[in-house]
Amino acid sequence: MEKQELLYEGKAKKIFRTSDPDKYWVAYKDDATAFNGEKKGTIAGKGTLNNRITSIFFRLLKNRGIDNHFLEELSANEQLVRKVDIIPLEVVVRNLAAGSLAKRLGMAEGTALPRPVVEFYYKDDALGDPLVNHSHIKVLEIATSAELAELEQKGLEINEILKAYLAERNVLLVDFKLEFGRTEDGRILLADEISPDTCRFWDAKTKEKLDKDRFRRDLGNVEQAYQEMLHRLGGDIHA
Amino acid sequence: MEKQELLYEGKAKKIFRTSDPDKYWVAYKDDATAFNGEKKGTIAGKGTLNNRITSIFFRLLKNRGIDNHFLEELSANEQLVRKVDIIPLEVVVRNLAAGSLAKRLGMAEGTALPRPVVEFYYKDDALGDPLVNHSHIKVLEIATSAELAELEQKGLEINEILKAYLAERNVLLVDFKLEFGRTEDGRILLADEISPDTCRFWDAKTKEKLDKDRFRRDLGNVEQAYQEMLHRLGGDIHA
Repeated sequence: MEKQELLYEGKAKKIFRTSDPDKYWVAYKDDATAFNGEKKGTIAGKGTLNNRITSIFFRLLKNRGIDNHFLEELSANEQLVRKVDIIPLEVVVRNLAAGSLAKRLGMAEGTALPRPVVEFYYKDDALGDPLVNHSHIKVLEIATSAELAELEQKGLEINEILKAYLAERNVLLVDFKLEFGRTEDGRILLADEISPDTCRFWDAKTKEKLDKDRFRRDLGNVEQAYQEMLHRLGGDIHA
Repeated sequence: MEKQELLYEGKAKKIFRTSDPDKYWVAYKDDATAFNGEKKGTIAGKGTLNNRITSIFFRLLKNRGIDNHFLEELSANEQLVRKVDIIPLEVVVRNLAAGSLAKRLGMAEGTALPRPVVEFYYKDDALGDPLVNHSHIKVLEIATSAELAELEQKGLEINEILKAYLAERNVLLVDFKLEFGRTEDGRILLADEISPDTCRFWDAKTKEKLDKDRFRRDLGNVEQAYQEMLHRLGGDIHA
């Protein structure tokens, strides 16, 4: 497999074409952004940590029947994935009120939700990734009703798998964001990443934050929190 | 029928109990507010105009099979309605992009939508009436899935009736907000008002605004726009 030209550089990853037209080469970056790019910084070692953490979660999900784009780890901060066309929706699943949901519904952060909440956000930086409903998504011609039902269903299934897996590791899965893509033969595959950049992880006992909220809210020990998450997943990086 | 104590004073109406426990007495006010109460003013004669306009629309809808709370006009600015418990959702139906939808989806105001958009907003002044999806509404325990489907279906039916009726009167129905309530025997009834306070009406040819946007955006001739709407509905008030 040969890395070819850069196709896309996002806030947290670079995507390269490869010699295989069905595969992309992903390089995770240490760059961190928050609040739609208004806050910028670097988290030392984040590229490596998120590559490892995402690989662990995507292997787990594959084993539990959730097909996804992950193929293999290529290096400390690189992985090979199946080529998909990303559906421009963030699928957010929440178990506890935090962040924008706490604000939207006037709930104290940490309030347990009686049932998981699923939200769709339209991936558009210029618009600030607004919350959208099914009706908006149909007008934007992003996905059909059947596809939205599939995304919601998959989001809820992934939530059950991750929640149980993390509970065994003393981590509370507060909420997380997923992205999906379409393969050339029209299937929907889980894609993007699952990491402390895209999830809220709290220590189950102390409720200490082990995710990007440490960066967003200037709580300190950002790298240590990402390392702690990798440690709890049993994937420590040995020099 | 006897007017009894004030039950509730909103931004645009007062609701009184009556001697009949199943009926409420509604007095429309001239007060106008916008942007969640940040902008306040008065529109001379608005109470009378909105009482007349709402009465016309609610009679029309009743004739077309959409049951609602309206019973009769009591005076220039008062009407008698059936008592319902208001469901704390604003049901917004849109035919053209305007206001918050234009902003949310990055569309130029006036863009025709390929299909009507239906949105739910949680009626909560302290939260700024946020957009909510089905999942939020279930967590808030405001309505069931079946009730939400009924609200969406009624919103779309009302849209078809009003759009056609207004088109014959040279008015474009850009968007509008509905509220519904539950009767004591559990039925859902259309309630609240349908007026230039709660709809965007544009002249079909000139696209001149004939609604509260004239107040929100300081366009002048606010009272005249409300009067023009009543005139087009054939309900002129003769002194």
